Amino acid sequence: MPNVLVLPGDGIGVEITPEAVKVLEAVLKDHATKLNFEYGLIGGAAIDEVGKALPDATLAAAQAADAILLGSVGGPKWDTLPAPQRPELGGLLAIRKALGLFANIRPVKMLPMLVEASTLRTEVVKNVDLVVLRELTGGLYFGEKGRGTNPRSAFDTLVYTEEEIKRIVELGFQTAVKRRKKLCSVDKANVLESSRFWREITLEVAKNYPEVELTHMYVDNAAMQLVRLPEQFDVIVTENMFGDILTDLASMLMGSIGMISSASLNGSKGLYEPAHGSAPDIAGKNIANPLATILSGALMLRYSFGLEDEAQKIERAIERVLQEGYRTPDLAKPGDKVLGTREMGNAVVEAL
Amino acid sequence: MPNVLVLPGDGIGVEITPEAVKVLEAVLKDHATKLNFEYGLIGGAAIDEVGKALPDATLAAAQAADAILLGSVGGPKWDTLPAPQRPELGGLLAIRKALGLFANIRPVKMLPMLVEASTLRTEVVKNVDLVVLRELTGGLYFGEKGRGTNPRSAFDTLVYTEEEIKRIVELGFQTAVKRRKKLCSVDKANVLESSRFWREITLEVAKNYPEVELTHMYVDNAAMQLVRLPEQFDVIVTENMFGDILTDLASMLMGSIGMISSASLNGSKGLYEPAHGSAPDIAGKNIANPLATILSGALMLRYSFGLEDEAQKIERAIERVLQEGYRTPDLAKPGDKVLGTREMGNAVVEAL
Ligand SMILES: CC(C)[C@H](C(=O)O)[C@@H](O)C(=O)O
Ligand SMILES: CC(C)[C@H](C(=O)O)[C@@H](O)C(=O)O
Repeated sequence: MPNVLVLPGDGIGVEITPEAVKVLEAVLKDHATKLNFEYGLIGGAAIDEVGKALPDATLAAAQAADAILLGSVGGPKWDTLPAPQRPELGGLLAIRKALGLFANIRPVKMLPMLVEASTLRTEVVKNVDLVVLRELTGGLYFGEKGRGTNPRSAFDTLVYTEEEIKRIVELGFQTAVKRRKKLCSVDKANVLESSRFWREITLEVAKNYPEVELTHMYVDNAAMQLVRLPEQFDVIVTENMFGDILTDLASMLMGSIGMISSASLNGSKGLYEPAHGSAPDIAGKNIANPLATILSGALMLRYSFGLEDEAQKIERAIERVLQEGYRTPDLAKPGDKVLGTREMGNAVVEAL
Repeated sequence: MPNVLVLPGDGIGVEITPEAVKVLEAVLKDHATKLNFEYGLIGGAAIDEVGKALPDATLAAAQAADAILLGSVGGPKWDTLPAPQRPELGGLLAIRKALGLFANIRPVKMLPMLVEASTLRTEVVKNVDLVVLRELTGGLYFGEKGRGTNPRSAFDTLVYTEEEIKRIVELGFQTAVKRRKKLCSVDKANVLESSRFWREITLEVAKNYPEVELTHMYVDNAAMQLVRLPEQFDVIVTENMFGDILTDLASMLMGSIGMISSASLNGSKGLYEPAHGSAPDIAGKNIANPLATILSGALMLRYSFGLEDEAQKIERAIERVLQEGYRTPDLAKPGDKVLGTREMGNAVVEAL
């Protein structure tokens, strides 16, 4: 029986992960594959309990697990700690790096009943169906950083090796092959040396995928094009920091980041988490949207366990619930039937 | 008589700068102040003529001038040159750095008659009135960059000194004082050391501006909020690369980057240019939108020559022309009266 390590984390993470577990159990009720859920500490919760955002026990359990389901980390309580110890750096970035989860996949596919929730005009977003592949263990996030004196200064380093670029770009091409065969590589090659290197490697990799139409776009233009004509995109591949910005931006096409799931993969193992944060302002109120986490569970079935049918069952169940007019508060418009976190989880289970 | 150095550059730059000059001359026709326009080479045009994107003569003229009006640089013709020699790095970034133009100001103010041109819903953008202050001579753009071997790699350095942060943040506060007194400093302090340093300096500077409400926002969230609820922003201040991405993104609130002007200042001198590029695909066809360049001319009157009334005259003339239904193709909807580049310039002159 495959082991899934559940790391609820902080804030709304504690409320949304149980809903995803509930849905995963429900969809596999009559299936030969069952999942064994184990639980661990990460982020602020781990700091409070054992003094460290990524406890050794959690890392060991993650290494042993077949897949990981993560809620969210962070909150004002831990913002005064030195940065490397905080939930984000010490917990989330640390586990991504320790497990070598270099590929972050965030699908953004418009659902007809959510078109109205977007701040973009209906005709602009109604056919959006794109995937952003973000490099997750390199670049500015993990390059050398520090302070200088005389004059007082601070620096971070954006560094990429050939291998780091190659593996994520290759995944970009492979993803495009299975979709509409368009890959847009986003960089800032008119300014950055690392981007020019990125472009060179991308052009080398491209030789193996003649069936994919490859384009290059500067990151400033990409931010603009995602708002101007988002339907032009199929697969976007980019480095860590650009990907961080563009995935959040792309999530707005859907009206709420509460709908954006993510998979972070290393070829053999996957960590699945919603794209949103721990939302301390709404934590503990049973109003957070659990759908991004439930959708992350579907990605787990797809990528870690090859259960494509079951993944689609979850996705279709969510569509049915939304179709019936049920919404969490982040998505609600006048006239919608507003559900709490638990109630939304139950509704998805029922729709299965 | 103040000297203005005009650097048309490449592509549509050659078509839009004469329209701005025409409008500047028209608005000062009966004014005591007259401007003396000189012309220089930059970008690809300079490479073709004298073999260098920023010729010594241009730099000397820029240093001697009271203000600079720039069109745009770059084009496919020069994209095969080594990066440091290209129009962007060798011309545009070189002149920004050589003149120490550390503050790039891009105002984004919705005009009622352009609301329909935005891809965002009317109610989301109709009251947008914000300014982005982008640091322009530091960060990833100018830090050490290079290649490594074993393994093959490439790097750029994001570095900021205290003084570099202080002067742009101070300008942010000063700008906010004259507006709605809200300053949002955008960084990625949960990951970057340079951002944590940026935040520390910002908090120090804030002590001198108790009347300004200061907030901090992560860059990924800022990209999202600009699409979700852009009216929440008054003044945004951020580092070079984040500013590059966010200003292009913010321009989309207006429907076209063809409406976004910019001023790049160093305290004593200003360079004024549209936020858009050289658009090689539409160059030479008399269809480019000259309004961002004309608006940049208005910023020149405001910031370099203290001619606030004349700046507003230009801004109001543009509003009148748009009000009458005249549009360049980038902004046109069915039913609009479409004008070419020159004709739009003439229309603004007539409306003055
Ligand atoms: C919390 C933060 C460190 C993280 C990141 O920047 O990667 C988050 O924004 C994300 O996108 O998962
Ligand atoms: C052309 C390019 C180097 C430039 C930049 O990145 O600064 C442009 O995008 C801008 O914003 O003025």
